[in-house]
Amino acid sequence: MYYPALENLIRLLGTLPGIGRRSATRIAFHLLHVDADEVEQLSGALRRMREEVHFCQECGGLTDRELCEICEDTGRDDSILCVVEEPNDIYVIEGTGEYRGRYHVLNGALSPMDGIGPEDLRLEELRARILAGNPRELFIATNPTIEGDATARYLADLFQDRDLSITRISHGIPTGSAIEFAEMSALARSIRSRRALDD
Amino acid sequence: MYYPALENLIRLLGTLPGIGRRSATRIAFHLLHVDADEVEQLSGALRRMREEVHFCQECGGLTDRELCEICEDTGRDDSILCVVEEPNDIYVIEGTGEYRGRYHVLNGALSPMDGIGPEDLRLEELRARILAGNPRELFIATNPTIEGDATARYLADLFQDRDLSITRISHGIPTGSAIEFAEMSALARSIRSRRALDD
Repeated sequence: MYYPALENLIRLLGTLPGIGRRSATRIAFHLLHVDADEVEQLSGALRRMREEVHFCQECGGLTDRELCEICEDTGRDDSILCVVEEPNDIYVIEGTGEYRGRYHVLNGALSPMDGIGPEDLRLEELRARILAGNPRELFIATNPTIEGDATARYLADLFQDRDLSITRISHGIPTGSAIEFAEMSALARSIRSRRALDD
Repeated sequence: MYYPALENLIRLLGTLPGIGRRSATRIAFHLLHVDADEVEQLSGALRRMREEVHFCQECGGLTDRELCEICEDTGRDDSILCVVEEPNDIYVIEGTGEYRGRYHVLNGALSPMDGIGPEDLRLEELRARILAGNPRELFIATNPTIEGDATARYLADLFQDRDLSITRISHGIPTGSAIEFAEMSALARSIRSRRALDD
């Protein structure tokens, strides 16, 4: 019905998270009305982002090189390893200034309803890092949601045989919310008052 | 905080309708995880859409030439001119097969709350077409919303001095909805049973 170039754009926009066909159509028609420069900028920004930004081979966070700035930083505390769901969470936790250890990104949380099991998370990489780096503390900062809590419990079971203090981010974050959107001072408090997982 | 290429993409995505910073961040991180090919496709689709599709100089609908297929079609009925809010509405009305006249796109509807006044709509172009083409009927198919109804009344006042039958799309479309998403048979009925605006 539409011109093929428009139909194709609507189809591709509709594959993005949170965007159905209705939103995709609205966005495509919006882009017909704005300056061609704006569309060119967005098109270029998409390409550039994927060319420049990729995942750190060590922690799974973001970098424009092989390792990220945090993994390359020799001044960080190797004795504590913070496990998060997404690369973005690293930036949020860094923003509090409360944490000086290392990070490990799982790329998600366990969610049987969405078909996400242990094999979909970066658990082998985590095990290898624990074996190689021998940290004293595994600080689990998955989101305080059903999935994040289940993942934390799973990790605690997985590594219980090791001589490893397993802690969980605690007070201050409203249950059911996401770390990424936590208020900064609440998040800082949660980091200071982290507790052993099975207390 | 983020890498500049990522931050830039999030900022640009956040300018799209219905996408705030939170959704933009979610989409950008999604695009980090998918195949690079998918991002390349989306980037290309954006550029191609703006290169290939633009607005018909006559009706304001979509075309990949100077005039659209409908304006160029000598077999259409010149005596009736259908006024719609958006280019997309033309395709929806065409889909019913009930209408064989011409179209005119306003590019919106009157909405004082959103700062959209008569000067923002393609009214001068409409006046010029009525003067030049001298249609018998002006069929107003703006959306059955507060804004669409206000625009219909405005048009009826604007052209009341002319020897012109002014009709309004009527039954079958739930009030408050958008033409674009109307159920096809309801829309076909509304076209058949259109009525004079001040009956």
